[in-house]
Amino acid sequence: MQPVKIGILGLGTVGTGTCEVLHTNAREISRRAGRDIIISHAATRTLSNVKLSNPGFKISDNAQAVVDDPEISVVIELIGGDQPALDLVLSAIANGKHVVTANKALIALHGNEIFQAAQQQGVMVAFEAAVAGGIPIIKAIREGLAANHIKSIVGIINGTGNYIMTQMRDLGAPFKEVLADAQALGYAEADPTFDVEGVDAAHKLTILASIAFGIPLQFDRVYTEGISAITREDIGFAEELGYRIKHLGIARHSADGIELRVHPVLIPQRSLIANVNGVMNAVLVDADAVGQTMYYGAGAGALPTASAVVADLVDVVRSLTADPENRVPHLAFQANALSDLPVMPIEQIETAYYLRMLADDKPGVMSQVTGILGTAGISIEAVLQKEPAANQTQIPVIMLTHTVKETQMNKAIEEIEALPGISGNVTRIRVETLDHD
Amino acid sequence: MQPVKIGILGLGTVGTGTCEVLHTNAREISRRAGRDIIISHAATRTLSNVKLSNPGFKISDNAQAVVDDPEISVVIELIGGDQPALDLVLSAIANGKHVVTANKALIALHGNEIFQAAQQQGVMVAFEAAVAGGIPIIKAIREGLAANHIKSIVGIINGTGNYIMTQMRDLGAPFKEVLADAQALGYAEADPTFDVEGVDAAHKLTILASIAFGIPLQFDRVYTEGISAITREDIGFAEELGYRIKHLGIARHSADGIELRVHPVLIPQRSLIANVNGVMNAVLVDADAVGQTMYYGAGAGALPTASAVVADLVDVVRSLTADPENRVPHLAFQANALSDLPVMPIEQIETAYYLRMLADDKPGVMSQVTGILGTAGISIEAVLQKEPAANQTQIPVIMLTHTVKETQMNKAIEEIEALPGISGNVTRIRVETLDHD
Repeated sequence: MQPVKIGILGLGTVGTGTCEVLHTNAREISRRAGRDIIISHAATRTLSNVKLSNPGFKISDNAQAVVDDPEISVVIELIGGDQPALDLVLSAIANGKHVVTANKALIALHGNEIFQAAQQQGVMVAFEAAVAGGIPIIKAIREGLAANHIKSIVGIINGTGNYIMTQMRDLGAPFKEVLADAQALGYAEADPTFDVEGVDAAHKLTILASIAFGIPLQFDRVYTEGISAITREDIGFAEELGYRIKHLGIARHSADGIELRVHPVLIPQRSLIANVNGVMNAVLVDADAVGQTMYYGAGAGALPTASAVVADLVDVVRSLTADPENRVPHLAFQANALSDLPVMPIEQIETAYYLRMLADDKPGVMSQVTGILGTAGISIEAVLQKEPAANQTQIPVIMLTHTVKETQMNKAIEEIEALPGISGNVTRIRVETLDHD
Repeated sequence: MQPVKIGILGLGTVGTGTCEVLHTNAREISRRAGRDIIISHAATRTLSNVKLSNPGFKISDNAQAVVDDPEISVVIELIGGDQPALDLVLSAIANGKHVVTANKALIALHGNEIFQAAQQQGVMVAFEAAVAGGIPIIKAIREGLAANHIKSIVGIINGTGNYIMTQMRDLGAPFKEVLADAQALGYAEADPTFDVEGVDAAHKLTILASIAFGIPLQFDRVYTEGISAITREDIGFAEELGYRIKHLGIARHSADGIELRVHPVLIPQRSLIANVNGVMNAVLVDADAVGQTMYYGAGAGALPTASAVVADLVDVVRSLTADPENRVPHLAFQANALSDLPVMPIEQIETAYYLRMLADDKPGVMSQVTGILGTAGISIEAVLQKEPAANQTQIPVIMLTHTVKETQMNKAIEEIEALPGISGNVTRIRVETLDHD
């Protein structure tokens, strides 16, 4: 078969890694794809930063020239972020080129528009690398589980956050210290907001929820809470209770609508996903026919991300001659068959809770607290009451509750915080058992 | 788009489950596939056993009629075993029909012949359900990791065996007792040979190795050892040393050739796959670009297997109009690009070892044993020496060795067994660290 010529936009970490994988594994890839894949032109903003010696293809700073090159059939977008990535991708599509991208923000925020343009032009936009790095999770959900009604997705989908949570537990160190170490090691950015405040995970969850449930991309509906408020004390208390705290993306298809949320969660220590440590990612999918399946691997890094980019490229290359209506739909479901199930506000969601509060070490305080919870219909599953530290008259009280709607919990917490025997705010972390939905 | 008509061979557990999934999730499946999938005729040997009421399609005992029906585009083979499955599948292919099968024995033993016939006819034979039930592992390796040079595959690919190993550890019970319980619960067959002696796992490993390394199917080259000789004592000693015993399928691409082996293995307790319990399956893949990825889920059962069957069906239906050269090749690599790398005999393979022997509680015996190992160039990593039981003059000695070639270990064990201070045979279990290859 004829070789396929491709263009690359962006020669940063992932761009360089993609060139490397295409070069190193060229023979194995063409033994699979049945033809050679040839990089014809790569564009980068800063030519002086290019790390490839003797690349064997043209390198320029003219991204538009890549997108306009009539020889190029597939454009790989590895610039990241919003602009100029969006304009370049739309321009490539308008030129009838297929696109492969690793850009989660682009897909989460502009995917609906991009996929519509692609469908009109009869081209493919592939984005396996946008979620969970090298784990083929888009393919697994979109094709591997095509027989299923998918009920929920629970994922560790930000490696930086998982690294920080793992280190806080292993070292008993506070958030700020671990974050500084992660920055020194290159696991966290200088400005870590996107990772530690859950924005990056929310981008990925948006994409996963769409392909799982057949709903449009709705990034602005994701409830997002970061890990910067998690203390080592909470991690320790959770462990005492048999739980581990992880920063999870959760998407669930319930009768009332779709849950879409990123926040810290207590999960049982014995669950497999609780044992996914360091920068590794994992996605647990619950579906009606297959039950629970889990997908684990590196969620970031040059070569793992390149692995997903090149897998998409092989898929695209194989489908070049397929009639568009027989290709796998961008969002797993046919574009005219998406569902308008609403995304639920966080107040409507039911979970169990971990609560921590500082109570006066005096009779009556605890009965006031349990009274408030009881009146709100919130049952308590476990209580952990600690001895007061030396010279302290207050004690930390930890509670695990049964499932309750978030509005009711908000109201109860407000009342507890107003008690004279309770100091400061009540810490609240949601709990998931991860049993079959 | 036009609905696609399919035929089903076999209405046992998986056949019935497949009909159920196609019925229950008909709308979600057609929202994904872009067309309806309609069962037109199902054949079963014993009509009186059919469990479907009001199926809405023809049920007969005439499998050949399904295979010959000109209305049917895809034949789903769920009979299992060798014949008549092989003849029916070849007959369906000869009639120009695509085939989906869950039959691991059929693919492992006759896949080369079947795929050659399929290629000549320009039809697809899909077999996701043949390995690890509902886990989309064939798709992950064949497509999701297409960019990679795959280095090794380590899998818990027999649920019955994993259930037995898990129960032996959790209950401290002996093999025979746990097997009897598993039979009573329906987790093990009346004749459990295929599961506990590793034949079933060897079928699956044969398939995984082919699609990972691009080699022909070579079931007869798999080294296979079962779990019936594993004692609860070995499980306990392994745990003391920080390891867990699992029955694994291992395929590794080394410089000298391909390793293909199914046997009990000690793996570190902290590894994720060591924590895959009960009837669950998991496959750990190590590949050069992506690193380690793992895929976890139900390896058997009516609905999980049906999930894989129907996912294949959706793939096949999508590719009906694709030109055959652009389809994913049956064994991941183009048929004319398979490698002739040899499968290594077990004697050539290097692993670390767990050894257990019964030694006289007398000075000198241990130094003779370590002398034999030392002369053979086998370093010892850990020794566990137990107190003799009351009225016993012999003690169990457990050793972990470093990596050594199996021939050398065989020779050393022979010499150790010949020592007058050692009673009976030396128990030997291979050890894998599961670090990146």
